[in-house]
Amino acid sequence: MKYRVDINSDIGESFGVYKIGMDEEIVKYISSANIACGFHAGDPIVMANTVERCAKNKVAVGAHPGFPDLLGFGRRNIDVSPTDVKNYIIYQIGALQAFAISNGIKLQHVKAHGALYNMAATDEKLAIAIAEAIASVNENLICVGMANTAMQMAAEKVGLRFACEVFADRNINPDGTLVSRKLPNAIIHDEELACRRVLRMIKEGVCEAIDGSLVKVKVDTICVHGDNPQAVEFAKRIKKTLEENGVEIIPMGEFL
Amino acid sequence: MKYRVDINSDIGESFGVYKIGMDEEIVKYISSANIACGFHAGDPIVMANTVERCAKNKVAVGAHPGFPDLLGFGRRNIDVSPTDVKNYIIYQIGALQAFAISNGIKLQHVKAHGALYNMAATDEKLAIAIAEAIASVNENLICVGMANTAMQMAAEKVGLRFACEVFADRNINPDGTLVSRKLPNAIIHDEELACRRVLRMIKEGVCEAIDGSLVKVKVDTICVHGDNPQAVEFAKRIKKTLEENGVEIIPMGEFL
Amino acid sequence: MKYRVDINSDIGESFGVYKIGMDEEIVKYISSANIACGFHAGDPIVMANTVERCAKNKVAVGAHPGFPDLLGFGRRNIDVSPTDVKNYIIYQIGALQAFAISNGIKLQHVKAHGALYNMAATDEKLAIAIAEAIASVNENLICVGMANTAMQMAAEKVGLRFACEVFADRNINPDGTLVSRKLPNAIIHDEELACRRVLRMIKEGVCEAIDGSLVKVKVDTICVHGDNPQAVEFAKRIKKTLEENGVEIIPMGEFL
Amino acid sequence: MKYRVDINSDIGESFGVYKIGMDEEIVKYISSANIACGFHAGDPIVMANTVERCAKNKVAVGAHPGFPDLLGFGRRNIDVSPTDVKNYIIYQIGALQAFAISNGIKLQHVKAHGALYNMAATDEKLAIAIAEAIASVNENLICVGMANTAMQMAAEKVGLRFACEVFADRNINPDGTLVSRKLPNAIIHDEELACRRVLRMIKEGVCEAIDGSLVKVKVDTICVHGDNPQAVEFAKRIKKTLEENGVEIIPMGEFL
Repeated sequence: MKYRVDINSDIGESFGVYKIGMDEEIVKYISSANIACGFHAGDPIVMANTVERCAKNKVAVGAHPGFPDLLGFGRRNIDVSPTDVKNYIIYQIGALQAFAISNGIKLQHVKAHGALYNMAATDEKLAIAIAEAIASVNENLICVGMANTAMQMAAEKVGLRFACEVFADRNINPDGTLVSRKLPNAIIHDEELACRRVLRMIKEGVCEAIDGSLVKVKVDTICVHGDNPQAVEFAKRIKKTLEENGVEIIPMGEFL
Repeated sequence: MKYRVDINSDIGESFGVYKIGMDEEIVKYISSANIACGFHAGDPIVMANTVERCAKNKVAVGAHPGFPDLLGFGRRNIDVSPTDVKNYIIYQIGALQAFAISNGIKLQHVKAHGALYNMAATDEKLAIAIAEAIASVNENLICVGMANTAMQMAAEKVGLRFACEVFADRNINPDGTLVSRKLPNAIIHDEELACRRVLRMIKEGVCEAIDGSLVKVKVDTICVHGDNPQAVEFAKRIKKTLEENGVEIIPMGEFL
Repeated sequence: MKYRVDINSDIGESFGVYKIGMDEEIVKYISSANIACGFHAGDPIVMANTVERCAKNKVAVGAHPGFPDLLGFGRRNIDVSPTDVKNYIIYQIGALQAFAISNGIKLQHVKAHGALYNMAATDEKLAIAIAEAIASVNENLICVGMANTAMQMAAEKVGLRFACEVFADRNINPDGTLVSRKLPNAIIHDEELACRRVLRMIKEGVCEAIDGSLVKVKVDTICVHGDNPQAVEFAKRIKKTLEENGVEIIPMGEFL
Repeated sequence: MKYRVDINSDIGESFGVYKIGMDEEIVKYISSANIACGFHAGDPIVMANTVERCAKNKVAVGAHPGFPDLLGFGRRNIDVSPTDVKNYIIYQIGALQAFAISNGIKLQHVKAHGALYNMAATDEKLAIAIAEAIASVNENLICVGMANTAMQMAAEKVGLRFACEVFADRNINPDGTLVSRKLPNAIIHDEELACRRVLRMIKEGVCEAIDGSLVKVKVDTICVHGDNPQAVEFAKRIKKTLEENGVEIIPMGEFL
């Protein structure tokens, strides 16, 4: 049997003179990129350069829309109406899509950023607003999110393809949700262990929860980070481990 | 012989709770709308509502990109590099285009706003940047500007259709340029006279300059305003005068 | 016995070319102004003009700080940490205070705006952050808010004078809280009745709740609006009614 | 004879999650700090932390107001009216002053940032607007700028103390102006030479221009950078060289 998975990362988060993230490094180890669209991070120049970088590195591009909150990097919950969110998403997808077009490539997916991602996991109206926004711009776009969330249900209801995302370095509860970052065991610091977990998720479709029980998981795309040298090394290692174990790393759009 | 012309107006310039312009009135008298894209005016909700209003009123939509300067309404010259401007334009066209798509209509044209419009009339590098931005997103988009400007030359060089814009209420110099707003005779306050001038421009292809000489003009689209009841009345009168004199008012995209 | 009360209104909420509120009218009928500070509304030019207008009209000035959310006019709850809020408030008070100084007058008070005002009524940590911010800039500033809220407790804990604010056109519950705007009887549309209620609050210290019971109230300042001609007329009427009934209208700083 | 000079640096230029500058290092080698005020860089949290850091390190604080252009870091000329600039400056000084007050220290000076600094060197109306803004908030504030500029003349006309600033690493023309950055010899890369030049400026009041001629200079404060480890090392070296040669490094407010 042939295994395949996508690896994604949030990039293009610089703004003006402010540089953040090791984009030029992390693009070597991912197959899909979530690109900030100017609301919580990113600006037109950064977006142009980031899309061009992805095109050169054969990395599929997606929009990473967030709240209009540069000061808070889109990480703060804002009590925005679903209609407003829908229009924020349409706007940001359109802006990024224009750079994709001008680089001769297609937009592959959309993944909500930060607080919007978290809120859309449980808020059905918000999730529907996001899904409808995506579909209204381009119904071929893939919606990325965690499995068994309001976001997944909304995407399917609206008729979008949905990519199940997992986090390589996070522990999970017996119900499949992430262990809260407020708890000491939220993060898996052992890279070797994290790689083995990801491999098992892909090959066996299960993941060990913190109580030792096995949880069924579907993995379409793995989220990695490019914020610092350690994160980049980890991404490199995951890619290498997966490839050495017969898993092909390709953009989600090629198998979903 | 059959005469036809387009009438355009800048709309969708409200922002958040701030309302500006009588959009709901002016759309009745125009065939094309220049819609602000969130940089100098407009926001995603305003854009969504404005595009929907145009679709309902059979008004063709265009992007009206400007400088990132909400505080100055895009009316202040900013010393921005051509590359930056190019990316500002791509971004804004993309954002508006997404709302056009989600409303099932096509984007027809792009017209630079305010200081950017004025600077692009004389700055060749800026004009080329704008034209290239438009073409890179969609080469079928029409570029709108004043005749015989750097903007027209740039559009033609890049291979875009160009729509020559005239202002119904402005006097012109013998060389075809607008009389500066700093001079007392910049504006034509006599509506009857303004209507006759526009009609003559369309039918005879000439316009009387302030020294009495006749200047050759090409009119593809007439710019009217919707800021106040008087402006709307004027727009209504121009439309009526033209139609009563055998000039058809249709979107520029249908004849260029 | 001599009665006295302050009348306040939110002004200076225009931004750039966007005008909102009939500031030039409402300042004739108020004794204190809450001036937006550039985060949710207002800009440096508007602030300068507004402070100057207040100085000319002998209206005492106060800061009206809000969330950094021009797009939402500061009306949307944002999940901001108390420390961040504290610094947002210090910043905004300082900015407005500079215009007061440059106009040769003193800043009298601070009143949180919109969502921040509402959140600080029940969130103790947020209320303390606001009170500490005010005290850290100038401990002589008066904190304005509703009676019996977290904001009042925080102001008193920090050692600030507190002004109890009432709304002339709002019905109250038996516990003294405002009837929710979601309910049909939230607003009192009968101006005559509203004026009598305010007068009774001032002279008798009580207000009739929606169930007919009498609630004890302390009134330091009455909030009126200047958004439209009707609101301005209402403010004018309240001022007239109070003065005809022996109540002096003076800035809160003169009696608190 | 006793020599003394001030060393200043632009700090507090981070924004939200975006970090820029090695503020924690450079504050060890300077006597005055120019702190961004939230328009071109900086935010309320950054300002609070920066002022606190300066207070702890006995570094005098000044406002570093700029254009409202975070995207361009305040480095782009904007065609703003003098009245608007005056109010931008009042606003920013006030905001920073509030953090000084809340930290129990006084604001010492104001230095325009980036494009505003450069424009005010030659544009008299702009320079007067800046000087008037400073004086209107606090006439004890020192205005910092290059000698023999419109800024110096404006400061003196308005009655402000003026601090003459020099750049340790820049070559000068025979007329005392800086060699343009567009020319290859704009920057002095030899640190040893740069230190000797600064020392001579302080002790002899002269500086060698690119043609070998000696130009009279007055040095109140030396501008150093903290953008990278090399810049910090250079600042450290200048401070050491000056102190070893009998020059005391103290805030400009103590000797002007």
